[in-house]
Amino acid sequence: MTTIAVVEGDGIGREVVPAAVTVLSTINPDWEWVPVEVGYARWQRTGSSLTSSDLAVMKEVDAVLFGAITTPPGGEYPSVILQIRKALDLYANIRPVRAPGVDLVTVRENTEGLYSGIEWEEEDRACSVRVVSKKGTRRIAARAATLARERNGHLTIGHKANVLRSDQLFLSLCTAVADEYQIPHTTRLIDALCLDVLLHPEAYDVIVTTNLFGDILSDVTGYLAGGLGMLPSANLGDRHALFEPVHGSAPDIAGTGRANPIAAIESGAMMLNHLGYPEQADLIEAAIQAVMLAGIKTPDIGGSADTRTVTRAICRALQSP
Amino acid sequence: MTTIAVVEGDGIGREVVPAAVTVLSTINPDWEWVPVEVGYARWQRTGSSLTSSDLAVMKEVDAVLFGAITTPPGGEYPSVILQIRKALDLYANIRPVRAPGVDLVTVRENTEGLYSGIEWEEEDRACSVRVVSKKGTRRIAARAATLARERNGHLTIGHKANVLRSDQLFLSLCTAVADEYQIPHTTRLIDALCLDVLLHPEAYDVIVTTNLFGDILSDVTGYLAGGLGMLPSANLGDRHALFEPVHGSAPDIAGTGRANPIAAIESGAMMLNHLGYPEQADLIEAAIQAVMLAGIKTPDIGGSADTRTVTRAICRALQSP
Ligand SMILES: CC(C)[C@H](C(=O)O)[C@@H](O)C(=O)O
Ligand SMILES: CC(C)[C@H](C(=O)O)[C@@H](O)C(=O)O
Repeated sequence: MTTIAVVEGDGIGREVVPAAVTVLSTINPDWEWVPVEVGYARWQRTGSSLTSSDLAVMKEVDAVLFGAITTPPGGEYPSVILQIRKALDLYANIRPVRAPGVDLVTVRENTEGLYSGIEWEEEDRACSVRVVSKKGTRRIAARAATLARERNGHLTIGHKANVLRSDQLFLSLCTAVADEYQIPHTTRLIDALCLDVLLHPEAYDVIVTTNLFGDILSDVTGYLAGGLGMLPSANLGDRHALFEPVHGSAPDIAGTGRANPIAAIESGAMMLNHLGYPEQADLIEAAIQAVMLAGIKTPDIGGSADTRTVTRAICRALQSP
Repeated sequence: MTTIAVVEGDGIGREVVPAAVTVLSTINPDWEWVPVEVGYARWQRTGSSLTSSDLAVMKEVDAVLFGAITTPPGGEYPSVILQIRKALDLYANIRPVRAPGVDLVTVRENTEGLYSGIEWEEEDRACSVRVVSKKGTRRIAARAATLARERNGHLTIGHKANVLRSDQLFLSLCTAVADEYQIPHTTRLIDALCLDVLLHPEAYDVIVTTNLFGDILSDVTGYLAGGLGMLPSANLGDRHALFEPVHGSAPDIAGTGRANPIAAIESGAMMLNHLGYPEQADLIEAAIQAVMLAGIKTPDIGGSADTRTVTRAICRALQSP
């Protein structure tokens, strides 16, 4: 039996994750859902935002469906999603964007770069180390090249090698891997890339880049899809997998019914694909398309429907396609 | 007498800088222009891309007008503009964007962050240190706050303090400076900011951020103005100033007459403002507007005119407003 850990988290995570579970249950009613409570609310109640037994559960299941977690600005606890990505070695963050004329995927390295955690304070300054390892680069490049091959596509390597020696390494290793996989590839400076992807999105297919550049680039590409409410993602390692909307917990709209559930539902579709149910994933995509076309949308993408109305419409479209 | 060092540089720098000089000369015919040859062509000829006597000239003049320089991908010499920014301590990179409904300025820290140059290779990885100093942060925050005050505007602090301890320092010092200057201010994570500035540009006025974030953000905001062909910038220190288009040397279109001279001409207008000629700067802005409205544009912004035609039209508009 397929077992999924469900982390709603905070804010709108508690609205969009149940929406995704509802939709997935319509298609695969016999999955086992294991709720895991981590994050801000849990920290407020117990003083702990994430424990090793939470991580153990996430390692045992077939996949994790994740909402969003509020990181307190005062640094009371470190980002929960970052801890999970490292603990489960989810080194590939896959962020697809589809819209009319647009079909591209950011493949973001997910464990190192500026997220190394190697940081210190001196008397008059603070320093953070950006780490690009050979192993880390080769494995993310291999993921990206494999994805480009599956898509019969091509690869863009996003970097800042004109300034950063760490990106000279990233660039040369990614180029070598793309050559080895015989994938057509080009390279682009990250600043120029973040603009060009807006001006010429049709020129891009798979884009591989380092951690923080991928964080920024994937938000920028969100513009092509009308905002973050539409963007799903997969965090993949060699042994574990976690699926989450790109958006955060959005405390400002939590509880108002305005949260767009599509990003979480699409994350569920990516999970179906990953677990070997591509037909079901396609059915969900088609249902979402139908509901969008019918104008049943949340306010962030120009509609006036609430989270539940959109979710119910998608379930209905699935039941009578 | 006002003396300006003119660095055309490489590629389209040799087309757009002369265009800017032509326009500026129409308004201020008695300035002295001191050509300085640095960059790729000079390196090919002499083996040196930039010398200390070039820097000495740039330090003596009232301002530098800069085009763009090609950095060879093989690392034969380090980026010339980065060397100049450091040598002249041009710590504030001011990048305004104006378009219908948009009037915002990125104030990018220009000397540290990931451009620290503190880097090394180990056996299995390469590291670059991101440096945020108290002095460097306070002075860029003060510049940004001063600019926001002059504009009767507000300040957005772009950061990634949820991941980077170096940005916890940046965020807290910028906040303190904005409080001290009594400038209304908000904070935004850089990834969310790069998307939100596209979705809601009218919500932004002055944005202050670290070096590489500012590099990316300013290219993203270029989308709001129709591309890099429209974006001027000022690199300011306490003693020196350099003005340059945000775009690069664009070897692919060099020599074809397709280069958009507006970014360089607007950089010239920023230079006029800086040197105490705001009325003349406004005249140039008005002339550019008139020429755009008349549809005399280069191909990058949807026209079919060449560099010279646009330049001549702007000069004519200046002569008979
Ligand atoms: C919440 C934050 C730590 C995270 C990141 O920076 O990776 C988020 O922005 C994301 O894109 O998943
Ligand atoms: C040429 C390059 C080193 C430079 C930078 O990264 O600052 C450029 O992208 C810019 O924005 O001025």
